[in-house]
Amino acid sequence: MSLHLQSLTITDQFWSHYRELVRTEMIPYQWNVLNDNADITIEKERNDNSIPSEKSHAIENFKIAAGLKQGNHYGWVFQDSDVYKWLEAVAYSLSIHADTELQELADGVIDLIALAQEEDGYLNTYFSIEEPERRFKKLAESHELYCAGHFIEAAVAYYESTHNEKALQIACRLADCIDASFGKGEHQIQGYDGHEEIELALTKLYSLTKEQRYLNLSRYFLYERGTDTTFFARQQTEDTGTKPVIAGMSHRPLEYYQAHQPILEQQTAEGHAVRLVYMCAAMADVALLAGDTAMLEACRRLWKNMITKRMYITGGIGSTVDGEAFTLDYDLPNDTMYCETCASIGLIFFAFNMLKNEARSEYADVLERALYNTAIGGMALDGKHFFYVNPLEVRPENSRKDPGKSHVKFTRPEWFGCACCPPNLARLLTSLHKYIYTVQSEQKAIYTNLFITSTATLEIDHHKVQLEQTTNLPWEGHVSIVTQTEQPTAFTLALRLPYWADDYSLIVNGEHIEAENINGFLHIDRVWQSNDKIEFVLPMEIKQYTAHPLVRADIGKVAIGRGPFIYCAEEVDNGEHLHLIQLNKDQTYQYTFDPQLLGGIGTIHVEARKRIITSQWEDVLYASQAATTYAPTTLRLIPYYCWANRQSGEMRVWHNQT
Amino acid sequence: MSLHLQSLTITDQFWSHYRELVRTEMIPYQWNVLNDNADITIEKERNDNSIPSEKSHAIENFKIAAGLKQGNHYGWVFQDSDVYKWLEAVAYSLSIHADTELQELADGVIDLIALAQEEDGYLNTYFSIEEPERRFKKLAESHELYCAGHFIEAAVAYYESTHNEKALQIACRLADCIDASFGKGEHQIQGYDGHEEIELALTKLYSLTKEQRYLNLSRYFLYERGTDTTFFARQQTEDTGTKPVIAGMSHRPLEYYQAHQPILEQQTAEGHAVRLVYMCAAMADVALLAGDTAMLEACRRLWKNMITKRMYITGGIGSTVDGEAFTLDYDLPNDTMYCETCASIGLIFFAFNMLKNEARSEYADVLERALYNTAIGGMALDGKHFFYVNPLEVRPENSRKDPGKSHVKFTRPEWFGCACCPPNLARLLTSLHKYIYTVQSEQKAIYTNLFITSTATLEIDHHKVQLEQTTNLPWEGHVSIVTQTEQPTAFTLALRLPYWADDYSLIVNGEHIEAENINGFLHIDRVWQSNDKIEFVLPMEIKQYTAHPLVRADIGKVAIGRGPFIYCAEEVDNGEHLHLIQLNKDQTYQYTFDPQLLGGIGTIHVEARKRIITSQWEDVLYASQAATTYAPTTLRLIPYYCWANRQSGEMRVWHNQT
Repeated sequence: MSLHLQSLTITDQFWSHYRELVRTEMIPYQWNVLNDNADITIEKERNDNSIPSEKSHAIENFKIAAGLKQGNHYGWVFQDSDVYKWLEAVAYSLSIHADTELQELADGVIDLIALAQEEDGYLNTYFSIEEPERRFKKLAESHELYCAGHFIEAAVAYYESTHNEKALQIACRLADCIDASFGKGEHQIQGYDGHEEIELALTKLYSLTKEQRYLNLSRYFLYERGTDTTFFARQQTEDTGTKPVIAGMSHRPLEYYQAHQPILEQQTAEGHAVRLVYMCAAMADVALLAGDTAMLEACRRLWKNMITKRMYITGGIGSTVDGEAFTLDYDLPNDTMYCETCASIGLIFFAFNMLKNEARSEYADVLERALYNTAIGGMALDGKHFFYVNPLEVRPENSRKDPGKSHVKFTRPEWFGCACCPPNLARLLTSLHKYIYTVQSEQKAIYTNLFITSTATLEIDHHKVQLEQTTNLPWEGHVSIVTQTEQPTAFTLALRLPYWADDYSLIVNGEHIEAENINGFLHIDRVWQSNDKIEFVLPMEIKQYTAHPLVRADIGKVAIGRGPFIYCAEEVDNGEHLHLIQLNKDQTYQYTFDPQLLGGIGTIHVEARKRIITSQWEDVLYASQAATTYAPTTLRLIPYYCWANRQSGEMRVWHNQT
Repeated sequence: MSLHLQSLTITDQFWSHYRELVRTEMIPYQWNVLNDNADITIEKERNDNSIPSEKSHAIENFKIAAGLKQGNHYGWVFQDSDVYKWLEAVAYSLSIHADTELQELADGVIDLIALAQEEDGYLNTYFSIEEPERRFKKLAESHELYCAGHFIEAAVAYYESTHNEKALQIACRLADCIDASFGKGEHQIQGYDGHEEIELALTKLYSLTKEQRYLNLSRYFLYERGTDTTFFARQQTEDTGTKPVIAGMSHRPLEYYQAHQPILEQQTAEGHAVRLVYMCAAMADVALLAGDTAMLEACRRLWKNMITKRMYITGGIGSTVDGEAFTLDYDLPNDTMYCETCASIGLIFFAFNMLKNEARSEYADVLERALYNTAIGGMALDGKHFFYVNPLEVRPENSRKDPGKSHVKFTRPEWFGCACCPPNLARLLTSLHKYIYTVQSEQKAIYTNLFITSTATLEIDHHKVQLEQTTNLPWEGHVSIVTQTEQPTAFTLALRLPYWADDYSLIVNGEHIEAENINGFLHIDRVWQSNDKIEFVLPMEIKQYTAHPLVRADIGKVAIGRGPFIYCAEEVDNGEHLHLIQLNKDQTYQYTFDPQLLGGIGTIHVEARKRIITSQWEDVLYASQAATTYAPTTLRLIPYYCWANRQSGEMRVWHNQT
């Protein structure tokens, strides 16, 4: 009995647009940035003179490390990872769309990386060029294993796409070097990186190569984490370097690195949000691959804390700019948060790896929430401008004049000195096909996580089965799946009933059927034949969401959603001072698809609502017995992901309600 | 025709308590701190390793500068000002309550300061001990003129109280040194200090000595400010010092120092809040003393911007911790603000100096608002613990876990490394009698700014007149003033009609009278005789305040006040999660004086109100069609100034209303 997903082709209009943008805009653009050819403005993500931002220098760093050029390393200590993430996106892109020229370019980069790799497999341009004596000696800051992880991920993807063995060989040599250097042996370092990433990369390398050492090493790093809480401090004390690896980073508490407790003991999602979700994604993979139930239980605990107490309605995570971090339960300020694009991407990784462990729709619901809102909101519709920080409430004047909001941009800059988000988006979008289904081979079940027009080819008991999914989502809630089989084949097709659908109708070959809802998936067990057709209709009602009352920032407010999208109001449609808008308790909403607006989007019109009049307040700041007076107007809402694609101005997700 | 205020004695129960606390607790306590004798915890006002906080060392610095001891300067570059503010408080205290021992102590400090003064009059222990070559060369940071100003203020107060000429001589020599060093002359520095203070000190020195040069120098500093916007940058470039005078300060924009424009051109209250109000206080004094109408107009403009767009309902100013500064109009967040105690004290100075220029009740209203709420809220009822930051909304867990709120303390620490607030409070409270009345000699009018039980002695046309004010304010609104005259004397007695009183009744010698309301003061023109009695009754209704709708933080919220007090809710009385409390639109309130609580305070009970129930939200963060459910409870409010005097917990000034 076996069931495997062999290939998946996305033909969806909504998503093909994004994937094409990656191929035609982002990958060439990023290549120019990596080579310092681009005529672009590199924006600092914060006002901090210690941030290197004049150029990328990333390819140049490799040439210097490879001995092809003289010079010094420039940029962040983790600058290499920009190249690796580009390479990973290229790998996925080549699997979608063959491109000999691009493949040759990537092959050349791999050749260059091979030259930069040291004899023992070590690979990191900063330390090779500048401070070889500090190798693995400042792991809290050094990002050496983080960069290694990104290379390994890229190499696995590149091998799967192109069968180029060179990248994979570099990856294995690098993994072997790390494996030799870390562990409980006498001459080994008993520790872990300051930024989780190697752990999830090693599970991918294991899945491809089946080399048990790689899975063991990933588990080692996860279990070692937070066990000896003096590790970073000891390295700090013993470090003989005269300059910081990353300036101003040494004050971070251990929670920032999720190194304050052994991971199985951690009860809440703490610290740097990207680090946390990368760690959790690795934990979920290790739980699956090693059958580690204690690890799975820890994943469930951290998931539950994050999703039920620390996640924005847009799928954003990270409530504070200081440490780009979680703060505490229900602390979800809308205008000072971080909600880094990369953190939502990491959340998608975590959610997907949980789905592989257990088919629960809540994982896919969150995956969808993060994907359709914060992740794609992180890039402009032109594919060339990017947000690092994804606010739920912006007023440009406040970002300009309140230092506490200076990190909240109101237009997407072209590039960042710390360029993690754009290439992370590129690799997510080009690998999106991986997230549509999960399979449970033993139960012979295939789970539909996302509704995206696509063709999937499965192998079930050595016979091919095709699933042709056609949908007009995300705008309308109709999904049809047509099966093609070599011979009648029994398997379970499970459809996610999304959180935003209160109801559904399910028609198989013209007949309404009832399907068992198991953990949010509707299970259809059947012997499938060619041209069997499922029609799955989801009502797309406009939803008025309220937050848990302990979310102080959202008390008395509502957010509007339809289908997977959370909507927002922009100043360009609604005038300034969006907080003066007061929705009624029994508000009605009207949906219209506007093919002319922002490439074609569904908009929501609100007729009966009030705007507070301020005219009688001239020169008065506080008044007693002041009656609030209102003027009627209309309000237009657009999906959150496409805000800030017109003129700059205010934006707001949570609307006041009276 | 002349009218002068000769003396004023406060016998008021509410304020005598505070003034006694200063005398019996704060002054001895601060003396111990200044001498490093105190067994206290010095708290850093921020988590910043560059802040010196292990000890005060302030007296020790003087001993070293005086050549009596060997050693290095320790503490902030402006550490001297702690001694000067203590000395000023001692001066006022001695005028209230003679104390030979304390006076001898202060005389000794003055002798020590005299020894530390350099031959040419220069006085600053940091630069004298550590970097004499950098004198006046890094004014953006050096606080040299700031410290000088505080000494001059202390010396003026000390002379007025004790007629000790030595302090005054030091002050004049110091002022002469500054006068010689600064100006438009060939060998003079054309510039100004980074922290305004010298300007208002020089007007005091002028008022005492009538030395025109001091007034001219104050005007010079004010008019020079912001005229050459390259001044600080040039000093920075030319500075030969190898260490910063204050670490991490050089990045501040010119607005921080109010040096971005000539002061007459500044339209809005910008930058560090204490600096701004100290500058404005000096401007108002210069406007009066020099008859400078352009300066007065500038004062009115900055006042109006600050009071109608940038002031908290508690009289706090400074919306952000970053630069302890103003941000933009209507930006008044309640839980991340700064609202430094010193800034509200400076606002009191500014308001009072405006009252001297023009009798408009709005100045006294703001003076009273800042005094009865943020200023005295800055100290504990025991007189030994102090807030630097005065929030309008606190949740301890958020202060602990959200770095953006780490500056918001929920219990008053004992002392701060940067100890400006406690001694500033001490000098305000001991000089409070100065603020009760202002006189307009030419109009032969005396204006009652504050209602405080006290006896004032006036000289009117060379005859003594006494005003015996008796009031049960701040708890009840009854004020009586009895006059005692040597002979029947004509003058105007003007009573402020406070902003919190919608109505009043005014009875003179048993007869109801109507009085003309001129700019908020009720004018009683009369030939007064002994035992004439005014009874002024102000209704003390509980007020429900709303903020201008552009104050985003306060939309949909109300604050409760009664008389001069703004009230708040504390967790100790009302349980946690105060934001769940929803007041009704037609809420009724009940006032009770509780003599047992917190030394005797008026409390407000709210009967009909709702608390949102959270129980049905278990494990749900966002829900559609979630009906809000409520449970009835009661709510107790206490005056804001006495919060955090019981167990630590949440506090809230602005309450949600539905």
